[in-house]
Amino acid sequence: MTQHLLGLEGMNVGQITRILDTARSFEEILERPVKKVPTLRGRTIINAFFEPSTRTRVSFELAQKRLSADVVNISNSGSSISKGETLRDTIANLEAMKVDMVVVRHPTSGAPHLLAACTKAAVINAGDGAHEHPTQGLLDLYTMRSRLGSLEGKRVTIVGDIEHSRVARSNIWGLRSVGAHVTVCGPRSMMPKGIEALGVNVEYDLRRAVREADVINVLRIQFERHGTSLFPGAREYARLFAITNDVLRDTKPECFVMHPGPINRGVEIASDVADGPRQVILQQVTNGVAVRMAVCYLYAGGAQAGDEARAPSRPEDEASVTAANVA
Amino acid sequence: MTQHLLGLEGMNVGQITRILDTARSFEEILERPVKKVPTLRGRTIINAFFEPSTRTRVSFELAQKRLSADVVNISNSGSSISKGETLRDTIANLEAMKVDMVVVRHPTSGAPHLLAACTKAAVINAGDGAHEHPTQGLLDLYTMRSRLGSLEGKRVTIVGDIEHSRVARSNIWGLRSVGAHVTVCGPRSMMPKGIEALGVNVEYDLRRAVREADVINVLRIQFERHGTSLFPGAREYARLFAITNDVLRDTKPECFVMHPGPINRGVEIASDVADGPRQVILQQVTNGVAVRMAVCYLYAGGAQAGDEARAPSRPEDEASVTAANVA
Amino acid sequence: MTQHLLGLEGMNVGQITRILDTARSFEEILERPVKKVPTLRGRTIINAFFEPSTRTRVSFELAQKRLSADVVNISNSGSSISKGETLRDTIANLEAMKVDMVVVRHPTSGAPHLLAACTKAAVINAGDGAHEHPTQGLLDLYTMRSRLGSLEGKRVTIVGDIEHSRVARSNIWGLRSVGAHVTVCGPRSMMPKGIEALGVNVEYDLRRAVREADVINVLRIQFERHGTSLFPGAREYARLFAITNDVLRDTKPECFVMHPGPINRGVEIASDVADGPRQVILQQVTNGVAVRMAVCYLYAGGAQAGDEARAPSRPEDEASVTAANVA
Repeated sequence: MTQHLLGLEGMNVGQITRILDTARSFEEILERPVKKVPTLRGRTIINAFFEPSTRTRVSFELAQKRLSADVVNISNSGSSISKGETLRDTIANLEAMKVDMVVVRHPTSGAPHLLAACTKAAVINAGDGAHEHPTQGLLDLYTMRSRLGSLEGKRVTIVGDIEHSRVARSNIWGLRSVGAHVTVCGPRSMMPKGIEALGVNVEYDLRRAVREADVINVLRIQFERHGTSLFPGAREYARLFAITNDVLRDTKPECFVMHPGPINRGVEIASDVADGPRQVILQQVTNGVAVRMAVCYLYAGGAQAGDEARAPSRPEDEASVTAANVA
Repeated sequence: MTQHLLGLEGMNVGQITRILDTARSFEEILERPVKKVPTLRGRTIINAFFEPSTRTRVSFELAQKRLSADVVNISNSGSSISKGETLRDTIANLEAMKVDMVVVRHPTSGAPHLLAACTKAAVINAGDGAHEHPTQGLLDLYTMRSRLGSLEGKRVTIVGDIEHSRVARSNIWGLRSVGAHVTVCGPRSMMPKGIEALGVNVEYDLRRAVREADVINVLRIQFERHGTSLFPGAREYARLFAITNDVLRDTKPECFVMHPGPINRGVEIASDVADGPRQVILQQVTNGVAVRMAVCYLYAGGAQAGDEARAPSRPEDEASVTAANVA
Repeated sequence: MTQHLLGLEGMNVGQITRILDTARSFEEILERPVKKVPTLRGRTIINAFFEPSTRTRVSFELAQKRLSADVVNISNSGSSISKGETLRDTIANLEAMKVDMVVVRHPTSGAPHLLAACTKAAVINAGDGAHEHPTQGLLDLYTMRSRLGSLEGKRVTIVGDIEHSRVARSNIWGLRSVGAHVTVCGPRSMMPKGIEALGVNVEYDLRRAVREADVINVLRIQFERHGTSLFPGAREYARLFAITNDVLRDTKPECFVMHPGPINRGVEIASDVADGPRQVILQQVTNGVAVRMAVCYLYAGGAQAGDEARAPSRPEDEASVTAANVA
């Protein structure tokens, strides 16, 4: 592994596969009554969320606590940031406190990369501006792989505001890396110029975009962020791009629908699709915890050889997952 | 037990007694230097507080951590709620993350019931609007029972803003269930129409209301919430309804005073009563932790047969309370 | 030890030395991969921060979790405080919840003393108004002692807004107690009248103030708090009082620079000094965690004789630091 997880751009199929395979071992733990292993006992992880988040922060925090890490949360309000400290000084301070990993969400694209450049702690990007959201990309890949097996040659259509979506970007990099075909679809005002250079097909007609798809990944439309500057309004958007049962009738019968949440019912996805048999939205949420357990395990040092945390020698410990049978 | 703890309405004396008896076992743990048992190790509890709270949230969090549960907090600010997600989708997501219990406080009456209807996780109501606050009701019953023994036939007078008080409502249901006589007292503008249908006596004169009482439970008057729309003001309220030493002189000598806190000194309770020998306010706070340990234990699956968490097989563990000697 | 840590005023050299010596044992733990000892298992600590803070709160929280304490955070927003509860009632409630220690930061000087006067829980002052910040003072002493050995007769110059700095005040008390010579330097508008009564030299000329210094401790100038009422502006301040490489040229070659952080680059300290070979700023941050582990250990009851938490009898526990080899 590299030291940091900043994005899926540049990550090769072997690296991605290792994370997904590790996540599979952790998925099984989530079905037990005692969902806890001592793997990261005595490791310290900071969740630094400089942008509002519930689901991603809770997902990471659950993953970390189930690995027995010590977890401390920082949010924007009440932080040194508001005292004018530079991000670089903040990370230097956390490193000086002997923190093993910093999970960072930041409104500015590239902020996690800046942090990573000046610390020995592992930096995990939990979403930076409109750039990348690699653990979301990985959990999407994991979910697709669980249903489809190998993703090589599979057809994934991503629908929504491609330009402003870090989820889209991480999906594209990850899917291209494992050999899937990607089509992006959305209004022209939400389509970045030159996106074809990433190796994707661009399609402005929803029906054509999903006809051959094995998976439709629906993006959240953030009207609360962009107002109506990019599109006349939610109703107009829904009329052209919402995934409805009617749209699904024209797809392959085994094609299924994904969404990173939180969903806008009646905007990008119809309520009966969001609750229907063709979607795997809540399975994505479950997989997210397993994937984040894998990421924390692999990047916070749990997987290092000779590590004390590796092979718990306490046979009475019901948490019998060791690095050996996980990795 | 039922799956959820949404209110004391409809709970029978056997169910209430089981919780109170379990709490007694936990109360003893709170006197130890090492206040921790492994009972809920590997269980996950979310505290979702969509309304400001310190004491209830801290009380629950301490109870949970002393049971060794993994605890994650969600508050209103910075949550998906502010992104327009429905409450139903929020709970579905938490369930998908394999959460065992969600403790929820919400400004809207009935919100926990809505959540409970769509999740397999246990939902504990930590206060919903002006509806119920069942763990407060239970800790009040526990405190009364510790002093009075059986509550059958005992006389409890609840004083304050009955209409807007979830504490009053949970007390009434619980006390009626265990056979106590309940009198409610307060200004006419704060008395709900038809409250007699719950089997309580209504009394508008404070002196008459407390004369035969074994217990006076004083409600917090929330002037910050209702302004002076219900009453001319705090001073006028105090003149007629504050519990003072003068008022206590007309009660039975063994009658004692309770208050759910935080107290408004000089409004609903005089400072010398709040600090005096007739009150048990801080004992209620201690009991609150024991009662919430019991609730988390009983509802988060710690009490299930065949559960790995049930009988810790590690004899060296100083936390020797097992399900066997608790339940 | 006394029961509370409210300030370094009145603390004698023996008490200070005991804390610093204990911190040295904990510093070593921070270099391990598994940075966790069971010393405070089952003890409960509340961090009550009624003023924004990241670094101090995170430092305390890491220290506490690495000692295996159960930790609950309270901040100003969403607390009972906003419901009008008195500070005294808040602490009484926390004590009733059987909390062992309350770490409190408060904008009002003396607030921790008020709390300490009415609780059996240990109160640790994490900064009160412009009064004291004793753990910062202790970590500064620890850092100086690590470099200089005994501090008796050593020369420490504190530069900045002496009047509004709790860091300055705790440094002065602590340094005087261990026999160091202290010079304070800053603009006249930031120098409290009669400061000489604390046994310090006052110097308004920066070059003269630092000429013989073994250590320069640079205070953060809080322009966000005091505006320009005390000084014409940041640029003017920097011209006269910033520690620059040019200023350092006139000091003894072994003289080093400290800063409690967060730093204002280009205001009280030049960027190349803040990142240069003469400063120990990040070492202070690391030492802060060790010192706070020592403080929590000594004041939260971990050091009491006959304590179950004292000598973990589990040989398989990799956390083998016991009270015996720490104290």
